[in-house]
Amino acid sequence: MIFLIKKLVVCGVGLIGGSFALALKKAGVVQEVVGVGRNPASLEIAKSLGIIDRIGGCDAATLQDADLVLLATPVGQMPELMQAIAPHLGPHTVLTDGGSTKSDVAAAVAQYLPAHISRFVPAHPIAGTENSGPTAAKADLYRDCKVILTALPENTSEAMALVRAAWTATGAVTHDMSPDRHDQVFAAVSHLPHLLSFALVHDLAQRENYEEFLRFAASGFRDFTRIAASHPEMWRDICIANRTALLGELERYQAQLTVLQQALKDSDAPCLESIFTKARSVRRAWADGAVSSSAPEKSQGKLV
Amino acid sequence: MIFLIKKLVVCGVGLIGGSFALALKKAGVVQEVVGVGRNPASLEIAKSLGIIDRIGGCDAATLQDADLVLLATPVGQMPELMQAIAPHLGPHTVLTDGGSTKSDVAAAVAQYLPAHISRFVPAHPIAGTENSGPTAAKADLYRDCKVILTALPENTSEAMALVRAAWTATGAVTHDMSPDRHDQVFAAVSHLPHLLSFALVHDLAQRENYEEFLRFAASGFRDFTRIAASHPEMWRDICIANRTALLGELERYQAQLTVLQQALKDSDAPCLESIFTKARSVRRAWADGAVSSSAPEKSQGKLV
Repeated sequence: MIFLIKKLVVCGVGLIGGSFALALKKAGVVQEVVGVGRNPASLEIAKSLGIIDRIGGCDAATLQDADLVLLATPVGQMPELMQAIAPHLGPHTVLTDGGSTKSDVAAAVAQYLPAHISRFVPAHPIAGTENSGPTAAKADLYRDCKVILTALPENTSEAMALVRAAWTATGAVTHDMSPDRHDQVFAAVSHLPHLLSFALVHDLAQRENYEEFLRFAASGFRDFTRIAASHPEMWRDICIANRTALLGELERYQAQLTVLQQALKDSDAPCLESIFTKARSVRRAWADGAVSSSAPEKSQGKLV
Repeated sequence: MIFLIKKLVVCGVGLIGGSFALALKKAGVVQEVVGVGRNPASLEIAKSLGIIDRIGGCDAATLQDADLVLLATPVGQMPELMQAIAPHLGPHTVLTDGGSTKSDVAAAVAQYLPAHISRFVPAHPIAGTENSGPTAAKADLYRDCKVILTALPENTSEAMALVRAAWTATGAVTHDMSPDRHDQVFAAVSHLPHLLSFALVHDLAQRENYEEFLRFAASGFRDFTRIAASHPEMWRDICIANRTALLGELERYQAQLTVLQQALKDSDAPCLESIFTKARSVRRAWADGAVSSSAPEKSQGKLV
């Protein structure tokens, strides 16, 4: 698809929004990028780094004639942002977002942008999050990443095509999923592991002598808890936004732990070995690429 | 301490035992290394690689005049091994081991080697375990690693000194701890994370459509589940050997998950944020070295 975005508005010029702008500029498919955000300092930095061409606001001058608007704030801020832009959007502007949860975004679009729902195609780029702010943005963040598009029933094929073309131009590979399915899958493979990793470190941190414990923590602990160094507010928002699916996953997991607890109580070696063997086999197949995965060998969002 | 081990016997010439032999050879503190094991092929490989000088057996000719014996089998095999060597040990031979749990080793020594308990100083080197067998052995495996010595009340100062000197000669830094304390600490920072990681992958693997889930798993999942690719039999043995401490840790952790579950049910954002913030702060301090740790920046036992 040959296309040109004359005016791109990025709301939230951090890692996700800034990288989107840089990638589209590098691909030569955007003429002008306007940045919108709550933090004037971040916007100035984004401008000085060439991520955006100028600073705009939640007003008609900025939004009325935009070809594409990307909402790239934490998901918790999106309802407010949608309400702020709603009165100023023109009838042709296509919208997408970069939020980590999708059912809540879909619901917010229906509630706050009903007049524009046919042109709002929600998206979730599976990309790193360990650094934040415009200085973390880079043109190749999305290269070979997966981006999940969770189209809404109301979406027009033109809006779908533009959003798909834009994300594809960033170097990402698009996949289609319903918002609910997206949230189920990511509750299992992303949100729950984050919750469990935070829980482990917090459980240790609550002890008076936790430093003695940590003194002997080694590589296994390091890898398991890498994601416990993630952004607390962002993960709070994700957990709340996806709480229904996450609660379902947590309940499954607690049942799994109860099985292991009973096996330990019974010294049931065959049961433990069977669970560990199955887990290792699936983990190894995934890492070896026998299961098509989100580039497990490529470190994105790697936390020390 | 200047010392020379004229005869070292290594029972189990894999990663742990083989690396111990190679390191002491490289340090020039051992004259002869004799390998003992159940797998003749492994012993031949160890000999061809220069890890051991000759192959011995559980007999007087091998053991009677040994200065130091290292038991380097999985902990589940140690009771049987101790029974096999007991009749053939001489009155001056000092012993140590490389097992990942220590209370069970201490108990087995008391039960199966009562005549030699004054000279058996249990040890746990905190070193990688992703590869196994003699081909994985390397002279610098223990360099800058921590080795926990869990001396028994019966140990003589001479035995303590030799075992400490030998592990120090491998390049490791020794730390002293009681067997019970060791098992408590490692239940929390190592055994529980392994159990939780195995549990997450197994929970996914049980679903019919698990490949759809894994297709979208990314770097957070990769890090969290790296240890789920660990050796099932070894971890079965560790979990069983340390089941009391591990059950205590698992119970604490389940209580922590119940707190998170309730916070999700209540959409209690401040509670989630508080837990995540505390966890991140402690995890970052640990990674930054504010808590003296087992070399978190150095990859030991890194699994893909």
